[in-house]
Amino acid sequence: MKIAICQINPTVGDIAGNRDKIADNITSASLKGADLVLFGELSLSGTPLYDLASHPDFTDRCQSAISDISEQESDCMSMVGLPIRQEDDYFNSVSVLSGGQEVTRFYKAMPVSRDELPYFAGIDSPEFGDGDGQEQLPANIVVCKDVRMLIAIGDDIQYLSSLGCFASKTERPDLIIHLNAKRFARNIIEDDAESYANLARELSTSIISCGITGGSVDTIFHGGSAIFDKKGNLMLRLSNFTEGMAIVDFTPEKGFTGLDGKPLNKKPLPVAGKSATTRHTYKALVMALKDYFAKNGFKRTTIGLSGGIDSAVVAAIAVDALGYQCVTGITMPSRYSSEGSVTDSRQLAANLNITCHELPIENIYASALETLSPIFGDSPFSVAEENMQSRIRGMLLMAVANKFDTLVLNTSNKSEAAMGYGTLYGDTNGALSLLGDVYKTEVYDLAEYINRNGEVIPLSIINKAPSAELRENQKDSDTLPEYGLLDSILYRLIEENMPPMECAIECDTSIDTVVWVARMLKINEYKRWQMPPIVSVSRTTLTRDRRMPLIAKY
Amino acid sequence: MKIAICQINPTVGDIAGNRDKIADNITSASLKGADLVLFGELSLSGTPLYDLASHPDFTDRCQSAISDISEQESDCMSMVGLPIRQEDDYFNSVSVLSGGQEVTRFYKAMPVSRDELPYFAGIDSPEFGDGDGQEQLPANIVVCKDVRMLIAIGDDIQYLSSLGCFASKTERPDLIIHLNAKRFARNIIEDDAESYANLARELSTSIISCGITGGSVDTIFHGGSAIFDKKGNLMLRLSNFTEGMAIVDFTPEKGFTGLDGKPLNKKPLPVAGKSATTRHTYKALVMALKDYFAKNGFKRTTIGLSGGIDSAVVAAIAVDALGYQCVTGITMPSRYSSEGSVTDSRQLAANLNITCHELPIENIYASALETLSPIFGDSPFSVAEENMQSRIRGMLLMAVANKFDTLVLNTSNKSEAAMGYGTLYGDTNGALSLLGDVYKTEVYDLAEYINRNGEVIPLSIINKAPSAELRENQKDSDTLPEYGLLDSILYRLIEENMPPMECAIECDTSIDTVVWVARMLKINEYKRWQMPPIVSVSRTTLTRDRRMPLIAKY
Repeated sequence: MKIAICQINPTVGDIAGNRDKIADNITSASLKGADLVLFGELSLSGTPLYDLASHPDFTDRCQSAISDISEQESDCMSMVGLPIRQEDDYFNSVSVLSGGQEVTRFYKAMPVSRDELPYFAGIDSPEFGDGDGQEQLPANIVVCKDVRMLIAIGDDIQYLSSLGCFASKTERPDLIIHLNAKRFARNIIEDDAESYANLARELSTSIISCGITGGSVDTIFHGGSAIFDKKGNLMLRLSNFTEGMAIVDFTPEKGFTGLDGKPLNKKPLPVAGKSATTRHTYKALVMALKDYFAKNGFKRTTIGLSGGIDSAVVAAIAVDALGYQCVTGITMPSRYSSEGSVTDSRQLAANLNITCHELPIENIYASALETLSPIFGDSPFSVAEENMQSRIRGMLLMAVANKFDTLVLNTSNKSEAAMGYGTLYGDTNGALSLLGDVYKTEVYDLAEYINRNGEVIPLSIINKAPSAELRENQKDSDTLPEYGLLDSILYRLIEENMPPMECAIECDTSIDTVVWVARMLKINEYKRWQMPPIVSVSRTTLTRDRRMPLIAKY
Repeated sequence: MKIAICQINPTVGDIAGNRDKIADNITSASLKGADLVLFGELSLSGTPLYDLASHPDFTDRCQSAISDISEQESDCMSMVGLPIRQEDDYFNSVSVLSGGQEVTRFYKAMPVSRDELPYFAGIDSPEFGDGDGQEQLPANIVVCKDVRMLIAIGDDIQYLSSLGCFASKTERPDLIIHLNAKRFARNIIEDDAESYANLARELSTSIISCGITGGSVDTIFHGGSAIFDKKGNLMLRLSNFTEGMAIVDFTPEKGFTGLDGKPLNKKPLPVAGKSATTRHTYKALVMALKDYFAKNGFKRTTIGLSGGIDSAVVAAIAVDALGYQCVTGITMPSRYSSEGSVTDSRQLAANLNITCHELPIENIYASALETLSPIFGDSPFSVAEENMQSRIRGMLLMAVANKFDTLVLNTSNKSEAAMGYGTLYGDTNGALSLLGDVYKTEVYDLAEYINRNGEVIPLSIINKAPSAELRENQKDSDTLPEYGLLDSILYRLIEENMPPMECAIECDTSIDTVVWVARMLKINEYKRWQMPPIVSVSRTTLTRDRRMPLIAKY
């Protein structure tokens, strides 16, 4: 049986566009001789859908698009993911098309992620392991060309893990078809490959995993499509962060071969490590930005360039995603800005070949102080005046963006967002936050990666001490621990939920420092509430995966 | 058996404070002779907890607080709601304390709301109706003073509804104890009273419902504590939107009596209607504001007064919640402002006895235009210049708030938020949105309610045509349908999920108008994403209960 794995990039909500893409892939795979064409979880609707999943009008249109696809000429079977309504419930499902009609439909048994839990119903499937110790064979079986396939949608494949093995040879399918839409996160590519390899070996059954790719606002789907033989060997892997199709031949006896009949070569499992993490994060961010703009019909971005590393990295990613013609930098010096804030920004713009405007904020700031003087009187300079500068910059950036119909990109990083080190309605502005899930120390790793073939981000930007430059001689280190230490503390508090005392020992710092960081993390939840969508590159994106009450009495 | 119903206002996360409040209530009820003291769902921890529910350190501290409470001297049994950890799972539970120790613990079987679904596990309870047609008696039974009580936590009481009746007299408990934390919404008070009355009658069993009250950021708990006899008569109701305690005597034979031995009088069920809706909404908003400030340690607010009805209603609510000394209004006229924007604001401030500052934005606006002139050139006046004015006002409001350590209140209403009729980082600013779930036409109802005893909000504010005043002679009606029509359309699209064609017929308007409104609703999801927490007064608060993808291709 010839199987085509189609790793497509659907646009969430765009049923017609996705339908056409799926139909084209089926035609193309069919011409190459495919008997079975696979598409990932929710490939017809895109994902995450949130409440759109339960608009009856939307699911009706999905159903009608499935009919369109099934009716097109082709000799092959195909499997397409979509949401479906059953009376008052909505399910994450897979439709199996063959011979001009939908021949069967499978439901995801257990939605587990927060993107689906409130929106999709689960099914009580006693045949899918009923929890009382008597695990049974799942009933999601399809046969095509005499190959018996078991279908698992997304995380439902975890049920199979719990089986350990199939009860008997006759119960064992020839092949597990895993239709997936996995959200990207640090090391998830490597972790998934390892767990599917283990599963194939444990169950002594080959696995084909077909994913989706693309950016859906704050969610990135890397793809992750791969083939594992029944010994757990990785036999094929599609490139991540891009669309692609692979066709292989499979027989229960011989396993996988290429279309030329030659056996596939065993490949090494991907290995996690700092350089892979940085490279994947970079690719994920480029894809997120590119797709957010393309899928919303925007071409150009306006970015505030502070002379610091965060805005430099964002600008470099934007140039990679949109092209240098579509990126405009604005440098907005104040009376407190260092000379480097302008010269380094200009150098960065020159390296990236982007336009850079200079809009000094002094006159506006002076006007604002003058306007406020009847109220402020002779009160001392405070955080009010600091924040004003950031908000004036935010206002100017948005004005330029509104005037020329471009989008502003947010430049806050995860360390700042965690600590509330940034001005709401100023620093936090933007349509999308690219670095809000990237710790400051990881921003330096990205800068190094961006400079891998030569200087793009000027070394003067990389080497300077981080500063908000909102008052005389201000440095981040005046109020925050040095970022290496801060990030180790934050990582343990956020990603590992570690109690403060343990965290202090592991980070070799005082409990007072950890308690202070934990307190800042807590009391600044309100700022994160109003941040733009943050592109997830970890499993614990702030506010999305770690949402806390805005009353900080805990 | 003498039963005390304690409707308390817990602070989310404040275990020590809630513990002391609960202990005080037990002491006080015990002194009055109570045998059983009831507290609502999650009364020890407060709610919603989000991810805090699954911090082991937090649940450990809840457990330790329960021990403290159980150890205090008292002869009565008490029931207290709290989150609990069982290995890797976290449950919404009720602890039953008696004789100096925790005697048993019940779990909520089926978390259903979005505030608990991703955070609390459910339990498979075959005794709680297993779905295969054979409904059985729930096992949550406690006996106190020979009274057999069935305990139901929150929405679990819906299971009992599905029973219809108890299988036999011996299975029927003497009393159903319903420990609840119900989020306020339009008509929920009346709907709940009716459904509990019906349930009591159907099951022929008395029900005591004990709720919590108070504001928890965007969530308001009205209380809803009440007693229904087995005929479904409402026998007692605690006041909503305030703490309270009621003690009644109950015997299975005689039913409910007062402590004086006299039978309770049957009371009419609350009846829904426009005036009750407006009154409840007003009380809910006052409570939300008061508690958000008190629980976060803030006393004072700064409000931008535009001369329009939204900011006037917010200011009046703020004065009711915080006191006139704690409210400062700022009027910020521009070259496009009508004279009324200042004079009406001043009159409102005089009526409310609050300070009102005037900060004209002309100089800042002129400086900003001058600063931008190298980029803007001679491009025509556009939305960029409109938004700048709103953002300058937002910057000034935040500056005053930051300087004097007060919080800004957002003044957007639900109709505007739905249509994106407001400037991000300007109009959308604020710590809390009071009216973001109140349609414009309902804002007028609130204004009328506020003026029920005489003019607080000047009639000139109520009677003027709504306008953003961001360009010459601008009126909301230039771009939006008249609000009466707009709100009927929005209500059907948002709260009833009605298809456009049906909506057009019901609203007696053109399909084009409905489609345009639906499109505006869709493409402005990104603005709502960055709004402050919106106090929920409906069952379909935008973004919270109706979250849609930020890619508007659907």
